[in-house]
Amino acid sequence: MYDYPIAIRKLIRELSKLPSLGERSATRLAYHLVYRDKGLGLSLADHLTEAMAKTRLCKSCNALTESELCSICQDSSRNRKLLCIVEKPIDIFSIERLGIFKGLYHVLHGLWSPMKGVDPSDLKFTELNKRILELQPEEIIIATGSTLEGDATALFIASEIGHLSTKITRLAQGMPKGGELEYADEITLQRALEGRSVL
Amino acid sequence: MYDYPIAIRKLIRELSKLPSLGERSATRLAYHLVYRDKGLGLSLADHLTEAMAKTRLCKSCNALTESELCSICQDSSRNRKLLCIVEKPIDIFSIERLGIFKGLYHVLHGLWSPMKGVDPSDLKFTELNKRILELQPEEIIIATGSTLEGDATALFIASEIGHLSTKITRLAQGMPKGGELEYADEITLQRALEGRSVL
Repeated sequence: MYDYPIAIRKLIRELSKLPSLGERSATRLAYHLVYRDKGLGLSLADHLTEAMAKTRLCKSCNALTESELCSICQDSSRNRKLLCIVEKPIDIFSIERLGIFKGLYHVLHGLWSPMKGVDPSDLKFTELNKRILELQPEEIIIATGSTLEGDATALFIASEIGHLSTKITRLAQGMPKGGELEYADEITLQRALEGRSVL
Repeated sequence: MYDYPIAIRKLIRELSKLPSLGERSATRLAYHLVYRDKGLGLSLADHLTEAMAKTRLCKSCNALTESELCSICQDSSRNRKLLCIVEKPIDIFSIERLGIFKGLYHVLHGLWSPMKGVDPSDLKFTELNKRILELQPEEIIIATGSTLEGDATALFIASEIGHLSTKITRLAQGMPKGGELEYADEITLQRALEGRSVL
């Protein structure tokens, strides 16, 4: 019986292990690389090897970096009394893009999720506690998303560090820009109402 | 401004070149590999390199293989007078799985598609003509899909080789097993009606 050559079968098996890639998509990708674009296949292999070898977590904030400290932790002009906690490295971009936050970050690399079997011990909490002791920040901004897990993680952090005199804040929740009441879900609207501000 | 380390940015750029992978999915994949599963990243690199190096097209039918000829072309028990034309290597599995076809295959590696800028000259037609001359098959089964492009390609092949005395057939088109008339689209129903068989 005909089957793909063993080298492709192995490649398909490895590709299928990637999150959100099923066997069908993996087969399609492998075929594309092997038949249409061997150059891309080879350069992808090189870049994978390079990225795996060179990349590590910032010793201080856990962002991805090629040096011991990431560019933000190395930047002496940042305000070390302001600490922003995010779920993953890409969230740092979203905030940096605004150009209005000048403090430091701490990356948790995940959110507390009993449903997905992720415990606080799987996240960078020990490092967070150490960091807080070391920096003695005046404000800690919890910038997790406004999902169930983002909420749970924020509450967990707040309860863990609530005894400190540090101000603990969280991103505002409410109507997104351009959102019409008609289309807002109940929780969003409820939070917008609860968090209403004086004009 | 913070950005991912350069090795990851390059990896994301390469991953985004894969068909059906946008920059967001590429970023997510790169992060997964770099932070969660460096082992998979490294083994993927190895398997990519190996597959790119070892895999080639069967000299005879253009299926993917690691030897000069694929296992089917090497199999002397196959009926060399029966030739089945398919779009891509994976289509061979679908037919082989049935265990009822004992002839040889010819892989076009694509379909004629003016919309996507694919001309017959981009497909393995020259090789097909050579193969037909060499094998002198009694029957050529055109097993392209029943899409617009599958239809166009089948008609093109039929017109190109129509002068031969070879019997040219195509996969039947009609109602799929379990299909209800109520849900069948018009073209499927029309083809099922035109191709009706005597009970």
